[in-house]
Amino acid sequence: MSAALGAVIDARSGQAARREHILDAAEACFVRNGFHRTTMQDLAREAAMSPGNFYRYFESKEALILGWAERERVRGALLVESLERAGDRRAAFLGVITQYFAAITRDAAVLRLDIWSETTRNPAIAAMTERAEAEARGWFIDTIAALSTDPDCDPAAVYAVLDPLMKGLVVGRALVPDFDTPAAVATLRAFIEAGLAGRLPNPERPR
Amino acid sequence: MSAALGAVIDARSGQAARREHILDAAEACFVRNGFHRTTMQDLAREAAMSPGNFYRYFESKEALILGWAERERVRGALLVESLERAGDRRAAFLGVITQYFAAITRDAAVLRLDIWSETTRNPAIAAMTERAEAEARGWFIDTIAALSTDPDCDPAAVYAVLDPLMKGLVVGRALVPDFDTPAAVATLRAFIEAGLAGRLPNPERPR
Repeated sequence: MSAALGAVIDARSGQAARREHILDAAEACFVRNGFHRTTMQDLAREAAMSPGNFYRYFESKEALILGWAERERVRGALLVESLERAGDRRAAFLGVITQYFAAITRDAAVLRLDIWSETTRNPAIAAMTERAEAEARGWFIDTIAALSTDPDCDPAAVYAVLDPLMKGLVVGRALVPDFDTPAAVATLRAFIEAGLAGRLPNPERPR
Repeated sequence: MSAALGAVIDARSGQAARREHILDAAEACFVRNGFHRTTMQDLAREAAMSPGNFYRYFESKEALILGWAERERVRGALLVESLERAGDRRAAFLGVITQYFAAITRDAAVLRLDIWSETTRNPAIAAMTERAEAEARGWFIDTIAALSTDPDCDPAAVYAVLDPLMKGLVVGRALVPDFDTPAAVATLRAFIEAGLAGRLPNPERPR
């Protein structure tokens, strides 16, 4: 490798590491003070950078929120990919969900709540949320259809139960000081298994 | 009734009506611009009142949020009361939940999301949320215990499913432009019925 190419690669991975560092600092800052009470100066200070240098990475608070949400999306996609390579798709599916929700920190849950609030009135954040929701929905519905052992399975109906359950779990993680994450994840897992087996209470197919 | 007493009652009911009007105006204003970007001047203007008069009713944005949440709590309690007088407690329970969630407006759902966000960093709002959550939990657990037809019913475990499902429903109502409220309410109702009959997937009692 030429010294010039090496320097470019070093600079790029340095930049990527700096971006990661900034997103971590922004998460802490937004969670502590909220999106609206946080200034770009607060964020630069939290990241231990000069405002001028900070603006080279992110030009606005909104860009930071979009960058943070994109990182969460990529983390989810990498988890899906690594587990799908494992072979057993059913185990991979259950593994992705339980790992994702077991690992969600209170800070990440709080920031997710804030992003949902912003979604209702900020068009750029609304577009990002809409894209992420559609992507998650598509992935879940495909996976439920592929894995269901119920001949009458309606994957969209199963997702219509799992989706609010997962969102409610994030709200609980953010709000409840002594939230019992393992219990909530075990419940979610039981519901996914029941959904794949066609054992969820179904408003359109009363028993 | 003496003229003096009549005047006092008129003034009181005038004040109560004015409070209602202010809370409606505040809901609209907070939903449009968010809690932090809304000023007391914006709120007074929305309520078509002078700032001086407005401050006689609510001294801060926080007092307005607490007043709004208290009104929601009282509305829920009145619904419970009116339905419990109806006699059939099971029908009353299902009626309360379905009426409450069927009637929730997008504005009310958005403001609820904002209140949850504020709960994570505002002690007065956190105390109010904690009180409301404990009250709801107590009411649900008592009612589930009284109405369950499952001899092995664990009311707290049933509530541990219903609670995130209801919170997720509020998030969906706030976020999704064409949210299918009747379908979500039908799902919730099916889950309550399954919970009372001991037919929910249970992580601690695998089948």
